[in-house]
Amino acid sequence: MKVLITSGGTTEKIDSVRGITNHSTGNLGKLIAERFLAQGHEVSLVTTKQAVKPEASSLLHTYIVSTVDSLLTTMEPLVKSHDLVIHSMAVSDYTPVYMTDLDDVLSSEDLTKLLTKSNQESKISSQADYQVLFLKKTPKVISLIKQWNPDICLIGFKLLVNVSRDELFSVARASLQKNQADYILANDLNEITSKQHHAYLLSDNQISEAFTKQEIADVIYEQVTHND
Amino acid sequence: MKVLITSGGTTEKIDSVRGITNHSTGNLGKLIAERFLAQGHEVSLVTTKQAVKPEASSLLHTYIVSTVDSLLTTMEPLVKSHDLVIHSMAVSDYTPVYMTDLDDVLSSEDLTKLLTKSNQESKISSQADYQVLFLKKTPKVISLIKQWNPDICLIGFKLLVNVSRDELFSVARASLQKNQADYILANDLNEITSKQHHAYLLSDNQISEAFTKQEIADVIYEQVTHND
Repeated sequence: MKVLITSGGTTEKIDSVRGITNHSTGNLGKLIAERFLAQGHEVSLVTTKQAVKPEASSLLHTYIVSTVDSLLTTMEPLVKSHDLVIHSMAVSDYTPVYMTDLDDVLSSEDLTKLLTKSNQESKISSQADYQVLFLKKTPKVISLIKQWNPDICLIGFKLLVNVSRDELFSVARASLQKNQADYILANDLNEITSKQHHAYLLSDNQISEAFTKQEIADVIYEQVTHND
Repeated sequence: MKVLITSGGTTEKIDSVRGITNHSTGNLGKLIAERFLAQGHEVSLVTTKQAVKPEASSLLHTYIVSTVDSLLTTMEPLVKSHDLVIHSMAVSDYTPVYMTDLDDVLSSEDLTKLLTKSNQESKISSQADYQVLFLKKTPKVISLIKQWNPDICLIGFKLLVNVSRDELFSVARASLQKNQADYILANDLNEITSKQHHAYLLSDNQISEAFTKQEIADVIYEQVTHND
């Protein structure tokens, strides 16, 4: 089986020295990759420079991305040539458009005009007491995967923070539908520590539970290979 | 000599999954630390979880910080008990105050009221096409160092992007004055690659030039120990 795994978190640039980062160590993606590699599957790992990675292997191909744009460009051809995608990467929801002093914003007669501006300077000045950063939504990579390859098996991830199990399941089920995902790995940041990682793997008709990152890797592996 | 070195880049949280990060690998701070450790000096290294670090040594004490706030709290007592501080950390100039949908901003009658708000949710919703992030200036750590300890030798860093040598020098000299720094290491991001790192070490009456990170570590070491 040809397995495509995404891990780590994207960064969207504000200027040449600052960016908005989605925090993710890449540990879970690494364990999932290792689980498949150990069974002789070919793994393509799309990840970031900062994320932890499995040891080199002739079965492992690693692709480094940073922004949502580079993720999209890298993913499209890979999705078309793989059987399974496990999309665990923390992808930026928003990307900076324009950053300016608060005074500029206060004196603007039409704020929507600021959305058409962009910063020309390489490093935005840091004189003003307050600054305002305008951001726009990025494309939802997960929603494009089945459009690129309707035959691929898609495992999406949904991370919420401090919600009930009911809400977590309801959001995960909405994501199954909306993105035509085969599975959603649903988890709550409050239930992730260095030692534990409580998560549920949901499909249309099944729920599996895991309590550590290794168990998550095992549950995913068993589900997708069992259904082969 | 007791040497305090800062390295890496701080991150200011937007919410529990996103933050604004100043990119810095910590490579230069690591080399500077190793230069002093090799000569038997005691080194306190204030750095981030992500930054690269020297190998453990009985002479090396490492302190992990993430935000400007944690940097301030960690630095104050250390500055008071060291002879030399080399402040190479990329410190966030701004920290998030409040993030909201563009519609909220457009319909607000007094934008400055938004500056008194804060996000109660753990993970800010990602439905709107545009969002607006208000940020406020952080305290300038470098300006506090001589206030905390007037006797400490202070080496500050100034990173600009794509400026002339004259402008780089002029900004560095202003920083020498304003922060009562003994030296400023002035560099331009355009002159930093994986192999080269062009920089100038300026004092009131002297300029030294370096072309690699190792040369920067050497030039700093030689200047401060020569003047002992």
